[in-house]
Amino acid sequence: MKSKAAVAFGPGEPLKIVEIDVAAPKKGEVLVKILYTSVCHTDAFTLSGDDPEGVFPAVLGHEGGGIVMEIGEGVTSVAVGDHVIPLYTAECGECEFCLSGKTNLCSAVRETQGKGLMPDGTTRFSYQGEPIYHYMGTSTFSEYTVLPEISLAKINPEAPLDKMCLLGCGVTTGIGAVHNTAKVEAGATVAVFGLGAIGLAVIQGAVQAKAKRIIAIDLNEEKFPLAKEMGATDFVNPSQHQEPIQEVIVAMTNGGVDYSFECIGNVDVMRSALECCHKGWGESIIIGVAGAGKEISTRPFQLVTGRVWRGSAFGGVKGRSQLPGMVEDAMSGKIDIDPFITQTLPFADINEAFELLHAGQAIRTVLDYGG
Amino acid sequence: MKSKAAVAFGPGEPLKIVEIDVAAPKKGEVLVKILYTSVCHTDAFTLSGDDPEGVFPAVLGHEGGGIVMEIGEGVTSVAVGDHVIPLYTAECGECEFCLSGKTNLCSAVRETQGKGLMPDGTTRFSYQGEPIYHYMGTSTFSEYTVLPEISLAKINPEAPLDKMCLLGCGVTTGIGAVHNTAKVEAGATVAVFGLGAIGLAVIQGAVQAKAKRIIAIDLNEEKFPLAKEMGATDFVNPSQHQEPIQEVIVAMTNGGVDYSFECIGNVDVMRSALECCHKGWGESIIIGVAGAGKEISTRPFQLVTGRVWRGSAFGGVKGRSQLPGMVEDAMSGKIDIDPFITQTLPFADINEAFELLHAGQAIRTVLDYGG
Repeated sequence: MKSKAAVAFGPGEPLKIVEIDVAAPKKGEVLVKILYTSVCHTDAFTLSGDDPEGVFPAVLGHEGGGIVMEIGEGVTSVAVGDHVIPLYTAECGECEFCLSGKTNLCSAVRETQGKGLMPDGTTRFSYQGEPIYHYMGTSTFSEYTVLPEISLAKINPEAPLDKMCLLGCGVTTGIGAVHNTAKVEAGATVAVFGLGAIGLAVIQGAVQAKAKRIIAIDLNEEKFPLAKEMGATDFVNPSQHQEPIQEVIVAMTNGGVDYSFECIGNVDVMRSALECCHKGWGESIIIGVAGAGKEISTRPFQLVTGRVWRGSAFGGVKGRSQLPGMVEDAMSGKIDIDPFITQTLPFADINEAFELLHAGQAIRTVLDYGG
Repeated sequence: MKSKAAVAFGPGEPLKIVEIDVAAPKKGEVLVKILYTSVCHTDAFTLSGDDPEGVFPAVLGHEGGGIVMEIGEGVTSVAVGDHVIPLYTAECGECEFCLSGKTNLCSAVRETQGKGLMPDGTTRFSYQGEPIYHYMGTSTFSEYTVLPEISLAKINPEAPLDKMCLLGCGVTTGIGAVHNTAKVEAGATVAVFGLGAIGLAVIQGAVQAKAKRIIAIDLNEEKFPLAKEMGATDFVNPSQHQEPIQEVIVAMTNGGVDYSFECIGNVDVMRSALECCHKGWGESIIIGVAGAGKEISTRPFQLVTGRVWRGSAFGGVKGRSQLPGMVEDAMSGKIDIDPFITQTLPFADINEAFELLHAGQAIRTVLDYGG
């Protein structure tokens, strides 16, 4: 079938909206009509060409919401008409990782997904007869996209997809990291580095966890009002301080924070985030995706004296098991998605959404396929 | 009073056995007669001059066992005649750290201890009228030493101090790191880097935790038989492999270990220890003390994909609360101290004990004051 899609033909080029061909779902696969998608920094990172795993031409996009249009052979867990959120972290329920009880990093489709292919090693997308790669197993920048069944979370059909699409990445990643990775407890002090969608979601998660103090850190002070609205209690602009920012935070917290979250992808900030943690128990969670080849460093003494360095992917959330519950939380108001949506644009304006993100003027722009 | 002591007069010099003056214990302090002490790499590190916190002249030594000879004003928790193990990690029971329930890193005497002083900012040692510094709050290389009350674990007087002295550092550090820091569970796969006293103690702890597979790693294959006797199941000499050792271990464990322990103090090995951990859940514990200014590095992707980087000091053991129980374990055979003692020498031969350690010919040499 034909589908409207914004194709990344090459690194650094704007996306081009064209009509691509989408093949029918094969065994274990599902055809989904995306109604809404949004743009995340990871899409921009891959589009820039800096992502060493990036392949072109590709259909990017990994935050979306849609409806099942057709199921392939053997698909049993979703049916035509189901409302779904695509998952870039699949959940097969059967691999060593899913069965471990310790991680959400399902390995079932990881290898092919990383290469921009479906599990059988081929693509379902083509343009003028040439194959186009998938991306993160989701490719939500095509109105019709094909995903493995295990990469779909079936959600309440009453939930508004124009909002729920944000649970496909940023909001879930931030809130999940607080609860699943850090396990922030009531009364804790939390530092959040970077006030994009993920950092704001961390703030929202920390409020849910009843953190006593939530320190919001960003170079762009225009982000502070929204962070405050979300529940941050303190605001720090590192450019306003002479000392390393970790020293500033240690001083203002009488020894450091209980938990810190790096939501940027800057390895220097990752170090600051670790070193602003309290001796004896402070834990730092890396969420941001660093550039290719970048490394984090610190003195081992930081760890020997009790700090813990962790990371989090998709907030430690098992998508098929846990995302439906988060959708319910968003419907009941326990998760507030509205403040994350700074713009809504027609899908045709997708390049403008990238520009708004780069300019720091958007938290999330929701793109409407008009479907 | 006069006391026999091995004094470190300057960095890089052999210790010199002299008769020093030891002042009476002040308020909250205790005079202890050390019967046995042993030599640990940390003593050697400070003696070398590489320890940026090292001060001279000093009485080193932090693994010992002794008897209370005199108590200062206000001391209530130990009495003359009590058998004690000096603690370089005090336990006041009242500071933010002790009350946190999350760490053993008591802060009560930390600042002065780090400067080689008693809590009142002075020293109890002198030689020919000149002050001599304390070390790690313990200074077990003096037959008579003065410690804060909160730096003494009172133990079963039936326990043989010539063995129990090793619970003052190495054995406790290794076993404690397994149970308190890593919390190794039955069936786990464990990698141990460095087969000195701490590494061997980690192996013993992993056996107690019913780890299924315990991989012992050292460049010195002469350490393998003792590691095997302790319970290690696999033995790897990195110099016998072309590939980075983390790749070797990932390959031999089908994805990596559940827990790894760095028991050397080498920042490159710390990286290997992290990166040989299993994606999704592997945790690496840094125990070794790195040289001044050395830094650990890795790609943040290692953490984002689920590995955890931790450190451990004194095995996470709260000395006054937990060491008496470990002494009971050693008496009942749950902890086997004998294999750690490779030599016993008279205290006068202390420099030989350092040489044996440097040559890799000793796990622990117990020095007997002959008292």
